[in-house]
Amino acid sequence: MVDGLVRRLRSMVAGNGAAKLTPKQLEEWRRQLAECAEAKGGEVSARTRAAALAQTYLELEDDGRHAFLRLISLEFGPAPARVAAAHEAYQRAVGTERQWDAETGLRAALRSARIRILTQFNAIPQGVKFLVDLRADLLRYLDEDHELAPLDRELGSRLGAWFDVGFLELQRITWSSPALLLEKLIEYEAVHEIRSWADLKNRLDSDRRLYAFFHPRMPMEPLIFVEVALTDHLAGSVQALLDEHAPVFDSRRADTAIFYSISNTQAGLRGVSFGNFLLKRVIDDLQRDFPKLRHFATLSPLPGFSTWAGKNPQALAEVGLELDVVQLAAGEWTTQPAATVRKVNAALAQLAARYLTLAKASRGDGRLPLDPVARFHLGNGARLERVNPLGDASAKGLKQAFGVMVNYLYEVGDLEHNVEMFAGEGTIATSAAVRRLARQ
Amino acid sequence: MVDGLVRRLRSMVAGNGAAKLTPKQLEEWRRQLAECAEAKGGEVSARTRAAALAQTYLELEDDGRHAFLRLISLEFGPAPARVAAAHEAYQRAVGTERQWDAETGLRAALRSARIRILTQFNAIPQGVKFLVDLRADLLRYLDEDHELAPLDRELGSRLGAWFDVGFLELQRITWSSPALLLEKLIEYEAVHEIRSWADLKNRLDSDRRLYAFFHPRMPMEPLIFVEVALTDHLAGSVQALLDEHAPVFDSRRADTAIFYSISNTQAGLRGVSFGNFLLKRVIDDLQRDFPKLRHFATLSPLPGFSTWAGKNPQALAEVGLELDVVQLAAGEWTTQPAATVRKVNAALAQLAARYLTLAKASRGDGRLPLDPVARFHLGNGARLERVNPLGDASAKGLKQAFGVMVNYLYEVGDLEHNVEMFAGEGTIATSAAVRRLARQ
Amino acid sequence: MVDGLVRRLRSMVAGNGAAKLTPKQLEEWRRQLAECAEAKGGEVSARTRAAALAQTYLELEDDGRHAFLRLISLEFGPAPARVAAAHEAYQRAVGTERQWDAETGLRAALRSARIRILTQFNAIPQGVKFLVDLRADLLRYLDEDHELAPLDRELGSRLGAWFDVGFLELQRITWSSPALLLEKLIEYEAVHEIRSWADLKNRLDSDRRLYAFFHPRMPMEPLIFVEVALTDHLAGSVQALLDEHAPVFDSRRADTAIFYSISNTQAGLRGVSFGNFLLKRVIDDLQRDFPKLRHFATLSPLPGFSTWAGKNPQALAEVGLELDVVQLAAGEWTTQPAATVRKVNAALAQLAARYLTLAKASRGDGRLPLDPVARFHLGNGARLERVNPLGDASAKGLKQAFGVMVNYLYEVGDLEHNVEMFAGEGTIATSAAVRRLARQ
Amino acid sequence: MVDGLVRRLRSMVAGNGAAKLTPKQLEEWRRQLAECAEAKGGEVSARTRAAALAQTYLELEDDGRHAFLRLISLEFGPAPARVAAAHEAYQRAVGTERQWDAETGLRAALRSARIRILTQFNAIPQGVKFLVDLRADLLRYLDEDHELAPLDRELGSRLGAWFDVGFLELQRITWSSPALLLEKLIEYEAVHEIRSWADLKNRLDSDRRLYAFFHPRMPMEPLIFVEVALTDHLAGSVQALLDEHAPVFDSRRADTAIFYSISNTQAGLRGVSFGNFLLKRVIDDLQRDFPKLRHFATLSPLPGFSTWAGKNPQALAEVGLELDVVQLAAGEWTTQPAATVRKVNAALAQLAARYLTLAKASRGDGRLPLDPVARFHLGNGARLERVNPLGDASAKGLKQAFGVMVNYLYEVGDLEHNVEMFAGEGTIATSAAVRRLARQ
Repeated sequence: MVDGLVRRLRSMVAGNGAAKLTPKQLEEWRRQLAECAEAKGGEVSARTRAAALAQTYLELEDDGRHAFLRLISLEFGPAPARVAAAHEAYQRAVGTERQWDAETGLRAALRSARIRILTQFNAIPQGVKFLVDLRADLLRYLDEDHELAPLDRELGSRLGAWFDVGFLELQRITWSSPALLLEKLIEYEAVHEIRSWADLKNRLDSDRRLYAFFHPRMPMEPLIFVEVALTDHLAGSVQALLDEHAPVFDSRRADTAIFYSISNTQAGLRGVSFGNFLLKRVIDDLQRDFPKLRHFATLSPLPGFSTWAGKNPQALAEVGLELDVVQLAAGEWTTQPAATVRKVNAALAQLAARYLTLAKASRGDGRLPLDPVARFHLGNGARLERVNPLGDASAKGLKQAFGVMVNYLYEVGDLEHNVEMFAGEGTIATSAAVRRLARQ
Repeated sequence: MVDGLVRRLRSMVAGNGAAKLTPKQLEEWRRQLAECAEAKGGEVSARTRAAALAQTYLELEDDGRHAFLRLISLEFGPAPARVAAAHEAYQRAVGTERQWDAETGLRAALRSARIRILTQFNAIPQGVKFLVDLRADLLRYLDEDHELAPLDRELGSRLGAWFDVGFLELQRITWSSPALLLEKLIEYEAVHEIRSWADLKNRLDSDRRLYAFFHPRMPMEPLIFVEVALTDHLAGSVQALLDEHAPVFDSRRADTAIFYSISNTQAGLRGVSFGNFLLKRVIDDLQRDFPKLRHFATLSPLPGFSTWAGKNPQALAEVGLELDVVQLAAGEWTTQPAATVRKVNAALAQLAARYLTLAKASRGDGRLPLDPVARFHLGNGARLERVNPLGDASAKGLKQAFGVMVNYLYEVGDLEHNVEMFAGEGTIATSAAVRRLARQ
Repeated sequence: MVDGLVRRLRSMVAGNGAAKLTPKQLEEWRRQLAECAEAKGGEVSARTRAAALAQTYLELEDDGRHAFLRLISLEFGPAPARVAAAHEAYQRAVGTERQWDAETGLRAALRSARIRILTQFNAIPQGVKFLVDLRADLLRYLDEDHELAPLDRELGSRLGAWFDVGFLELQRITWSSPALLLEKLIEYEAVHEIRSWADLKNRLDSDRRLYAFFHPRMPMEPLIFVEVALTDHLAGSVQALLDEHAPVFDSRRADTAIFYSISNTQAGLRGVSFGNFLLKRVIDDLQRDFPKLRHFATLSPLPGFSTWAGKNPQALAEVGLELDVVQLAAGEWTTQPAATVRKVNAALAQLAARYLTLAKASRGDGRLPLDPVARFHLGNGARLERVNPLGDASAKGLKQAFGVMVNYLYEVGDLEHNVEMFAGEGTIATSAAVRRLARQ
Repeated sequence: MVDGLVRRLRSMVAGNGAAKLTPKQLEEWRRQLAECAEAKGGEVSARTRAAALAQTYLELEDDGRHAFLRLISLEFGPAPARVAAAHEAYQRAVGTERQWDAETGLRAALRSARIRILTQFNAIPQGVKFLVDLRADLLRYLDEDHELAPLDRELGSRLGAWFDVGFLELQRITWSSPALLLEKLIEYEAVHEIRSWADLKNRLDSDRRLYAFFHPRMPMEPLIFVEVALTDHLAGSVQALLDEHAPVFDSRRADTAIFYSISNTQAGLRGVSFGNFLLKRVIDDLQRDFPKLRHFATLSPLPGFSTWAGKNPQALAEVGLELDVVQLAAGEWTTQPAATVRKVNAALAQLAARYLTLAKASRGDGRLPLDPVARFHLGNGARLERVNPLGDASAKGLKQAFGVMVNYLYEVGDLEHNVEMFAGEGTIATSAAVRRLARQ
């Protein structure tokens, strides 16, 4: 097996990265990784050596990094023979008093040197961020190199333990936060681009809140953040919310909080979920600061809508749309006479309601909604409350969802019940209005 | 098997904890734990329920806690049949491209609901401290109830990940630190009791340093701390060091740092080691603050010395000691004429040198020193430098080691080499003086 | 005049401080002070020189300091001739447009080099604390050397500007505060001695609050602090409040806050008052934290009671007391049969009520109460609410006031009115009960 | 006199502010100010009332504020008759032991209610900033209304005491500072405009430092700030320094610190100087961080150069300049052939050297340089080191000084001597090169 590995690594060396990778280099890495894995000379100096290796990694190009990670993934896994022996002992012990030791033994046999090596990288300054970014690399290479999977899973599982929500700090970010941090929001905002420092300042005004989760060892790196508008109605248009010239709303009079943008920032934390906890804790925090708040809702995009519509032209016809997806996405229709626009929007609302409630993802048991944002909010127990045609009239909004946005309502008392219905039966909580729209 | 468990739990219910535990109570816990394990109603509310369960746990007496932990350990482990199937698939795949997925599959089959439940407890305020204390409970019950072992190992392994040294913060503690924190030093000091706030203040004076490791989620809980004296010689007497009336040494003139007390504080972190990293980082910090420092050494106890001597009376005879261990421990001899005292001390020095270099622990491969403090410092790469008769003339010091203390020297350039020799051959680094003493 | 001064300084030099002070030394100080006053070589280096001078001052004994301060007070004042000219110009200008410039001119002529020199001392680290302590010295010497008065007034006035209440920070002190700070509370407590760290911890328990004012440039130096007990009744006994073994009161049920100890800490800030602001802000803070609080009252000593009684033996007779002040202060009577104790206490209550309402201070216009604590609280608008015989049964309490304590009630709505009545007519706000007692 | 005042205030009421100001309003203010001055109802409630009055002030337009300040200035000054009596007593007492009390008495008679009222305004949140801004108002009105002078002098003197350099905190500002604070730098920069957030970030890069003084009660308000470039030569061009695309200099190799921009930010602190202390402390801080730094110099503008040249056309002729000031300021000559530009620059350098060393301010004793920036640095003890033609080639730089900039060198060992020579003889420290230039 190792021979096979070496062959494959060699082909990599001979490939397009040839200029940078040599068999000698690989051999050197192998030696150093083995030293780390054995912690030769003690844990303290092993960490020092691991830090040097991490530094090397940072200076590599993609193919060097890829080869380096392959080495760890393929050569530092558990030994099948040892696993077999431990498993046999375990199965023999089941039902006896020795079962518990045998379970521990099997677990130990499966423990690999990979994770030990990776953990040692944690010793460098910014070590956690280094590992998160290393996993982002892994995930990129994984698409074309499935043999990195075990390393990815082990690292993902360790990051999952480290980024347990119990360790995360909810922080409110304001205009008094460090510029270094605010600059990252501008960079990371994934839903509605922050166009300038003035735009950002507007989003931090007295009728806004911005919250993020932080890990204690990545103090200037938000993990996920949510932007909130305090208002007195269920906001339906993101352009209205982001208008820098709109008057500031007196937040003491607010009864509604609108979550209008949620951005995950760390590609390397894919699969480690904390979005649901974030919303829960933000709602708690807002209720404490604004006792008059009654309603918590999102103003959310439908990222898969236009793609789905493109694949289901009959659905357009069924709601009476005469424009095709290209025309709808181009948005010229929005400048037509009001009656025309109204008619298109009515049809789009109906189409969106069907898309959200009926289109299912192929993965899983076929009961999950196709739309990823719907999956997230419905999975948290929210209710599909209202469809907003031309809720996002930007070019991006038209292209993605013909301008449609949707409100998901977080009714605190219903969340748990909705989660159970959704997880159990696949039932989607919807308002009467959306139900009517979908049925028409 | 579950029947057997229930039987055993029942006997516990019927036992001396009968007044508090009922089968109904067990059933109720089982139901609640299952709900947590399944995360029914979503992760967010599962954590809320887990928090309630953690609260319940805190209010239980020992036998209730014990039964509760048994439930988790025995009923929420992996399913042997599922493990068997995953293992078969894994072994079949070895050497093929499917090996990597199969490895991940086997790992998944071994993942138990236990750790998921425990992790959810992390949601309560002070959740990390809760789990550390829960493991301290576990370790106490483990002595008499070996079936808790798998739970202990899983929790220990998770705590090991959480308390990775990369997450710990080194902090210097001073007289300006919170009283709440200083009070804990008084409580936790395990080597040389802190007798009063005045004693503590003396240990934080300008010729002293006190460092501790902290976890970001246990901010007022030192995990381990070390007390350092800055001086100009290899200090041999702890009473001299702790004398509140001794003049303060001008620390700018110091060339030697004496680590005279190292205390682990959290019973629940047994097996998670960070003492070696602590000393490394304290040495770095001291070198930065006091560029003239040349020597780093401990003044350490020999906790197993008198017990070992009691079991090896011939060793006492060999060095010419006429007193027996009871007499040596009582310490009356220290008030005899100087010549007598000198003679006894010379013999004790020789005896201690032999104990430290020749007495081996029964566990392991028989190459590790019997004395746990020696194991720790030699394992870090320190050198056994000097034996100090009457280095600790307190009643405790006499009882534990007939007053003998020892200096371990941390020679920064030699540490790595010493670790390798010690780990490989079991070779103990010793000064020429100690070598001579042991040979006489 | 300067000749006279030099004569007097010389006699000081020749006096009991002779060993330390020489005319040469005085001449050297004079030269250095003059350099500071002129800011020769620029402000920046003048401050550096002033810092050196301040250091010198710190190393002097009392007679050296006294001579140093005399030098500043007598030789660096305004020039009478210049004042006369400026005054003449001012009076001529009154009523004309030049009046305003002339006023500024007169003010400038009165400005002395003394305050310039003192202000420069502010440049040393801990400069503010240095000046506060320097004024404490001044106040001590002032009793016997009235010529220091102008320096004292100028410094007092400058400190008054610097310690304006607008600059002070109210901080709550807890068991999490630095030990360095808590240690000072033990040192500074002026009313009911803090006997140990355990006693202090008890005063910081969850049913207690301790607040202090701080100046931003004296961060570890409380200026004044108040100790508060949260309870459900008008506490009458200080021993009951300070009992370390008493159960902790559930502070969420509290409706009454008792200020049981107020200590000024800086002798050098005599005449700079902030006690009234402290109580106001503490009441605000407590109302925010404990919305159920309805009553704010003190449990206060009567520091002048026994002295007054000693001078007014007929007052004792009038209330039927058969014991004399020596017997009352010795406190043996408190161990007599209950009926006797009750009788003595009843008489003492009556006597105390008369003392507080009728005994007047000789200074001022004869309308201010003799008792300084009464003057403070009544001047703040509080009401004399209840007299508590044996409210302080300690030896100190018996000696000072035969064990009597008194409650002053801060009824938030009445404070302003009470202040006006007290300031205007000298009217003392009293409860009906105290009025009756005083009249009996 | 008061009649006269009322007449003048009335004319104001009747004037262009008529719509807003009524005699009734004035009467109401007078009553409230009197209440504050008397502290009726106690200090605590007087401050509360003052806060309300301050709030009123903030809501007024300029003429309302002006009238309000006149009221305080004219009606709450000292009483001339009382001053006269106190002065007589003082002069009688001179030379006797009663002199010291009499001096205190005269000072008390001069103390006005004005400052008491203003100090009470300090009670509002941001009270210090309120008073600083109020003085900025005063200074604006003062130009046309000289009767505000006494109020201005009293407030300026109080602010001088409050902003004593001993209270100020030197802070380094970085890209990790709050955006709220950084935004103010953009607003306050008075020398070289900060054009964008990117420009600002460039000025906070690793080869730059930015320091500011803060008052503890104005935490987000820099009082003065200085921008520093770390480099290896005496920088002569501000455009080169501010080039965002220039490579970052490795600051560990720096031997020279260039102060290239110093901005005072608070108009209301005119006359309260701390620029000299700022530079002193920044030099100390830089020396600690960069032990290799040897040279500290400014790159400074000549704000009065072109104005002076406009008034002294013969001076241009003397150095052989054929262009007039309009042409020089327009800057077209900078695009001429290199030889021409070189010739103009040579003449400008000579002209600037003469301007700086020979042109004197009319105020004072005629020995101070006309150029305010030269006055500041030479007054601090710096040396006029080098003249840099086209040091600032921006439109502003050309208009102000035909592009010329100058370096002042802070030679730490010479500062004190230079200050004395400058203050005493008016001697300007100059390098040999500048001396030659001026003489040519």
